[in-house]
Amino acid sequence: MQADPVITLTTDFGYDEPHGGVMKGVILKINPAATIVDITHGIRSHDIREAAYTIGMNYQYFPSNTIHLVVVDPGVGSDRRPILVEADRHYFIGPDNGVFSYIFNRYHEITQVVHITSEHYFLSAVSPTFQGRDIFAPVAAWFSRGLPMARFGEPVSDYQTIPMSVSELSPEGVLLGEVIHIDRFGNAITNITRAELNMLLSSDSHGSLRIMLKDQEVLLRQFYGQDRDSRLYALVNSSEYLEFFIYQGRAADQYHIATGDQVSVMIARDG
Amino acid sequence: MQADPVITLTTDFGYDEPHGGVMKGVILKINPAATIVDITHGIRSHDIREAAYTIGMNYQYFPSNTIHLVVVDPGVGSDRRPILVEADRHYFIGPDNGVFSYIFNRYHEITQVVHITSEHYFLSAVSPTFQGRDIFAPVAAWFSRGLPMARFGEPVSDYQTIPMSVSELSPEGVLLGEVIHIDRFGNAITNITRAELNMLLSSDSHGSLRIMLKDQEVLLRQFYGQDRDSRLYALVNSSEYLEFFIYQGRAADQYHIATGDQVSVMIARDG
Amino acid sequence: MQADPVITLTTDFGYDEPHGGVMKGVILKINPAATIVDITHGIRSHDIREAAYTIGMNYQYFPSNTIHLVVVDPGVGSDRRPILVEADRHYFIGPDNGVFSYIFNRYHEITQVVHITSEHYFLSAVSPTFQGRDIFAPVAAWFSRGLPMARFGEPVSDYQTIPMSVSELSPEGVLLGEVIHIDRFGNAITNITRAELNMLLSSDSHGSLRIMLKDQEVLLRQFYGQDRDSRLYALVNSSEYLEFFIYQGRAADQYHIATGDQVSVMIARDG
Repeated sequence: MQADPVITLTTDFGYDEPHGGVMKGVILKINPAATIVDITHGIRSHDIREAAYTIGMNYQYFPSNTIHLVVVDPGVGSDRRPILVEADRHYFIGPDNGVFSYIFNRYHEITQVVHITSEHYFLSAVSPTFQGRDIFAPVAAWFSRGLPMARFGEPVSDYQTIPMSVSELSPEGVLLGEVIHIDRFGNAITNITRAELNMLLSSDSHGSLRIMLKDQEVLLRQFYGQDRDSRLYALVNSSEYLEFFIYQGRAADQYHIATGDQVSVMIARDG
Repeated sequence: MQADPVITLTTDFGYDEPHGGVMKGVILKINPAATIVDITHGIRSHDIREAAYTIGMNYQYFPSNTIHLVVVDPGVGSDRRPILVEADRHYFIGPDNGVFSYIFNRYHEITQVVHITSEHYFLSAVSPTFQGRDIFAPVAAWFSRGLPMARFGEPVSDYQTIPMSVSELSPEGVLLGEVIHIDRFGNAITNITRAELNMLLSSDSHGSLRIMLKDQEVLLRQFYGQDRDSRLYALVNSSEYLEFFIYQGRAADQYHIATGDQVSVMIARDG
Repeated sequence: MQADPVITLTTDFGYDEPHGGVMKGVILKINPAATIVDITHGIRSHDIREAAYTIGMNYQYFPSNTIHLVVVDPGVGSDRRPILVEADRHYFIGPDNGVFSYIFNRYHEITQVVHITSEHYFLSAVSPTFQGRDIFAPVAAWFSRGLPMARFGEPVSDYQTIPMSVSELSPEGVLLGEVIHIDRFGNAITNITRAELNMLLSSDSHGSLRIMLKDQEVLLRQFYGQDRDSRLYALVNSSEYLEFFIYQGRAADQYHIATGDQVSVMIARDG
């Protein structure tokens, strides 16, 4: 049995219904030693892409061997498969609907995926409407007690991924990306990373970055409160992605920024 | 002292005020070994019926000997009694205002109820406005340390129940029920159970179920995503109750379904 | 190493983003024995005053030696200091922006404050936008393992406090205060304490309290449900402050009560 197993929950259940709490009850009944942490139950309803982004950006802040339950599952009850994933010394349990796409993209070579079929680890009556409670939670709890992955089913390699938007470098040396997420504070997060910005910068030692959101130039800052006015700025956020914000404001609302909006970054020659 | 005691919280405090967190502090001060789980703090304000439904449908997913704190208490400070309940190898602590009605209805014969009066287990200054903090949380914590029920007060048998709506079978063989709960996803849950539907079906081996919500026939499905259109369907939900839903929609809003709406189920002869 | 360390979180992150959960991951990675409790993530965005009030009114319900993380930090990334505070046998970690003002006001003499500068206790890459994750959470976790305060930095005495509004007694014997907080239920909390009301009462053995909110007299009650009508009443709340409320209603909305509204209490001679 593993010491101090940690199990996280990422769902779209919200906080007003008892579903998240009930999953914890099911887990504690099987493994009273589990420490259970809510990453969030506030994923937008049925938003597989937001779930994939959330777990993909944050799992690494948890201890090695953490088991991450992700239950955003519009296909619950259909024949989509429940899966158990190992990658980067973490474990992931959820529906095979793309919620682990960031994990699969980054650790494609070393990922192990098992199709969960061992029904004796499920609750005795499985409802076709709440498999978070009846399949995913008990499997996570049994797995946290130290059972090997192979006990839960056969390996598969044809798991689902949703296409993840990535930025690209044009022949003219312009980094082309887009807004991929509007967070709850109205910040607009792009698919352009700090590494890509640094690479662009390193291509011209006399230049600086020029950031365009649609037709508007946006100045780069280091942190939110650097200029305490109400203009639109960009910064590299805590997940290392380029993000548009307004200090103590809601950038996406005020500037009508939406997922999919084009962003480009180029080198501007100084002077 | 009990190993690994679990204490759950079900309240209408919401998440924006510190009340739920403070109750946890009080518990941990008395019993640092307690594992505390939020079932939900999102019960509608003062809604005793929703609290009764929520704990009644979900307590059994927690380990035996779990202590369930339910603090939905519009009469806080008045002379309504704090009670400690044992039923089905679980314990329940809260105001004697009907929040345990589902428990009492189902386990009437074997339930033990104590009127909590032993003030030396309360916080030293009891506010008439926050007894969740000053009475219920410390009593739960002391009880979780293994004290017998009798230490907290005298048994009572005149505890409050609110009338729970149950379906009935008409002389013509029609199951008559009603909508008892609209959940946060807009699903409309009835008081008709899977067992009752099965009994109706077993009365006629050549028939199938015909479900009427007010004047409208609604088709029965197995799971939410079975037909991915926007029509109103019914299914038996994860609590084993008949429920109306729209796939990825809000049934109650679109069809103006409200608590108390009549539902009937009868046998339709095939062919 | 301390047994059963408790770490609390008070932030304005809300519940829809993963930030609170990620801080817990960081803590558990460093100290798997920590028990982490959310006081609330629902502080109004950037509201230092509400954060100060919330932690100041509630820390004492937690066990001694609890470490309270408060991350309401509009200046994140600027040169405001991270601090570690000891007061009343509790510890507090957060930005030096006034969030600990209630603590400083009450325990001015005995408070120890350290400017956190020991970067080897931070995450290896510190983002200028999420120091809750990169500085405050790991410092809390290392400190919960029993390191002395001096390991984290040098003592300072010029920490920030925000002016806390306090009531005063006029030469005519009138207690003058104001509304300092509207809570999520629409209750209006003042800066007048039970102790001050008692002192006023004790000045005249034949009098009773007369409470005025702006130009309106408001009757004092013991608990919310004492009169089950929809009039405005006052009571002394569970934090020992005078508060205006409507039974099962929203006082601040209905009576247009706002932070800063004048409140006065005087002795009315009976008969």
